[in-house]
Amino acid sequence: MDKIKHLKCSKCGKTYGEEQMYHCPICGTKGTLEVVFDLTFAKKELTKEYLVSHQNPNIWRYFPLLPLKDIKEEIPIQIGHSPLYKASRLESLLNIDNIYIKDEGRNPTASLKDRASAIGVHKALELDKEIICAASTGNAASSLSGFAACMGLKNYIFVPHTIPEGKLAQLLVFGSQVILVDGDYDQAFDFCIEAVNHFGWYNRSCAINPYLVDGKKTVAFEIIEQLNFKVPDKVIMSVGDGCSISGAWKGFKEFYELGLIDQLPVMVSVQAEGSNPVNRAYRNKNREFDYITPKTIADSISVGIPRNGYKALNTLNESKGRAIDVSDDDILQAMTVLARHTGVFGEPAGVTCFAGLLKLVKEGAIRKDETVALIVSGSGLKDVKSATMAVSRPKKIKPELEGLISYLDEVKE
Amino acid sequence: MDKIKHLKCSKCGKTYGEEQMYHCPICGTKGTLEVVFDLTFAKKELTKEYLVSHQNPNIWRYFPLLPLKDIKEEIPIQIGHSPLYKASRLESLLNIDNIYIKDEGRNPTASLKDRASAIGVHKALELDKEIICAASTGNAASSLSGFAACMGLKNYIFVPHTIPEGKLAQLLVFGSQVILVDGDYDQAFDFCIEAVNHFGWYNRSCAINPYLVDGKKTVAFEIIEQLNFKVPDKVIMSVGDGCSISGAWKGFKEFYELGLIDQLPVMVSVQAEGSNPVNRAYRNKNREFDYITPKTIADSISVGIPRNGYKALNTLNESKGRAIDVSDDDILQAMTVLARHTGVFGEPAGVTCFAGLLKLVKEGAIRKDETVALIVSGSGLKDVKSATMAVSRPKKIKPELEGLISYLDEVKE
Repeated sequence: MDKIKHLKCSKCGKTYGEEQMYHCPICGTKGTLEVVFDLTFAKKELTKEYLVSHQNPNIWRYFPLLPLKDIKEEIPIQIGHSPLYKASRLESLLNIDNIYIKDEGRNPTASLKDRASAIGVHKALELDKEIICAASTGNAASSLSGFAACMGLKNYIFVPHTIPEGKLAQLLVFGSQVILVDGDYDQAFDFCIEAVNHFGWYNRSCAINPYLVDGKKTVAFEIIEQLNFKVPDKVIMSVGDGCSISGAWKGFKEFYELGLIDQLPVMVSVQAEGSNPVNRAYRNKNREFDYITPKTIADSISVGIPRNGYKALNTLNESKGRAIDVSDDDILQAMTVLARHTGVFGEPAGVTCFAGLLKLVKEGAIRKDETVALIVSGSGLKDVKSATMAVSRPKKIKPELEGLISYLDEVKE
Repeated sequence: MDKIKHLKCSKCGKTYGEEQMYHCPICGTKGTLEVVFDLTFAKKELTKEYLVSHQNPNIWRYFPLLPLKDIKEEIPIQIGHSPLYKASRLESLLNIDNIYIKDEGRNPTASLKDRASAIGVHKALELDKEIICAASTGNAASSLSGFAACMGLKNYIFVPHTIPEGKLAQLLVFGSQVILVDGDYDQAFDFCIEAVNHFGWYNRSCAINPYLVDGKKTVAFEIIEQLNFKVPDKVIMSVGDGCSISGAWKGFKEFYELGLIDQLPVMVSVQAEGSNPVNRAYRNKNREFDYITPKTIADSISVGIPRNGYKALNTLNESKGRAIDVSDDDILQAMTVLARHTGVFGEPAGVTCFAGLLKLVKEGAIRKDETVALIVSGSGLKDVKSATMAVSRPKKIKPELEGLISYLDEVKE
């Protein structure tokens, strides 16, 4: 029995079989396809009893809901099963009864993207592709690079030549063939598609690959399991292209359809003010995205045109969601408040969701008795440079006790 | 019943009660104390049946063997339970049947030090200390900083003013009070001790704190559990001060004394050629360490005089261990070979152990049928700058298919 019913265009709604490799042929790259599952199989396998009694700590436990035919040899790296923390010190600070932090920085390459790359790599192997590729300068690239290395799968990463040395180094350490494109990110992206068409490689990019979202949805499955099948009232996420929030929403919906939960959360999309196309379109009830050159410190969610915009809009519409914009200053402040109350150090895009929560609290838009889940999508170690902007350097003191005493007095410690 | 029998000096062997807060009063800071447990309690609690049936995934599962009286409120962050990978692609490459990688970069602040800091923070709370402090520029500092933040415990970190901005930023994001000392690391260290003596703060430093090693030993407990109570033939670790290797050895010994395993591994100490005081002393059968200014890219294990040197020497003597020195070039090469075959990206000090394995293999000093465990102590994201030295930058190409075709031909892909 085939798990997948069909692939459905997120823009026009037309359905296709799996022979349609990437986007909708009518809508073009704007029409990313969504996998619609036949849940008969999952209903039998993924019962609450099964889940409670089988604790294999990775995303493969959800195999009946993953768009893979067979897994001959799982990626041996532990993917997913990131911890969910009840943040009691934050709860006191914000006067909310239940705040949970899903720390996606604990994934193998320290971001939520690992869930998507895992599917991408296995899909390439399933399709007998010898090469997988992507255009990215960020978390998607390093995660693809790491998993492909782990499986011995050749991979090409297209990056603009302006990529920071540190990010480039990671890809090279993992042994990726890096194509250093003499052009900007968009040129690297288009060049990657051109190369894929020519060489027949497999393209791992949430932008056009229909399957990766189904890796990301596992974050929702885990939240539900970790909350013992209770559903948070609000799930707050940082949003760029819209892939992650639509992934999580798909996860909640599928668990709902399986009867594992009896309600759905409200999805809250938090975007940087300087890069908020999804939120603008949602507020204006638009079905088109207008391009504004993105400008935000949160590089992982800095986008002009969101490449999974329709899926994100559908998510907000279906969940009666909320759209919150925050400034870069809000984001930097959120980074320190979160770290100081939970010990979770997130990258700017990772803590943007928390800046959104702080704004909701300020507006009185969260009731005390609500349960809130925040998905911190990436580790602060990914971008330590931005962290330097969130703090100020203390003054230098001589190694003498007297000086220390007066210094501590000065800083009121 | 008290779990702790006494504290024993690792240099002279004299024993003390717990009122002796730090080092041996006779041997001074050279005589770090080791906690000797009364195993009666652990023997009853930590049976194989208990461990197999209780899967709480963190270090607190070993409470009967942790030097804490009581834990009112556990640090809510998940510490330990890092994955152990069977590295099949490495096994093929090196022609060894069983190679396991313990990926300590998956800890909350991405290093093995988290296990020690967890004990330090709880010990401070147990002793009703309001302030915990440390002198460190590295992993110990960031891990203390994160956990203290999580528990709302005030903390002071003494660092030389030359600390890299990125490392400083992490501490400040977590809200540590950073004492930026106008002096070098040794001056910051001594100044920290002086301040502790004056103010009565709690000192978290493996160098003089007897309890932290008992956090680190949990890495050995986990390896044994993850191997289903089989014991590796060799456990290979990167060594600096000697705290981690003596911690792991203590763990293996305690599980042996509890009857949970029936043999002990050979411990292999791998040091950088430019910072090898433990290995030198072991080879020369010395009981004193001669100072040579350390020089290695692996900053986390760069030491002149090892502060847990006697514990490390005892480990090598007791386990009939091996001491291997590797060059910085070996370390950088090990970083790429490991990453490309396992997907695990370690910092230089994290992969030094693997450079040691490569050397052992070259020397024919590992049998094919041996089981080898490598403990990769920290994530490569901690020090991306060093990674840039392990790789070379590819050439830039124009976004044109023809150019790509000839480029791929050139690099023989």
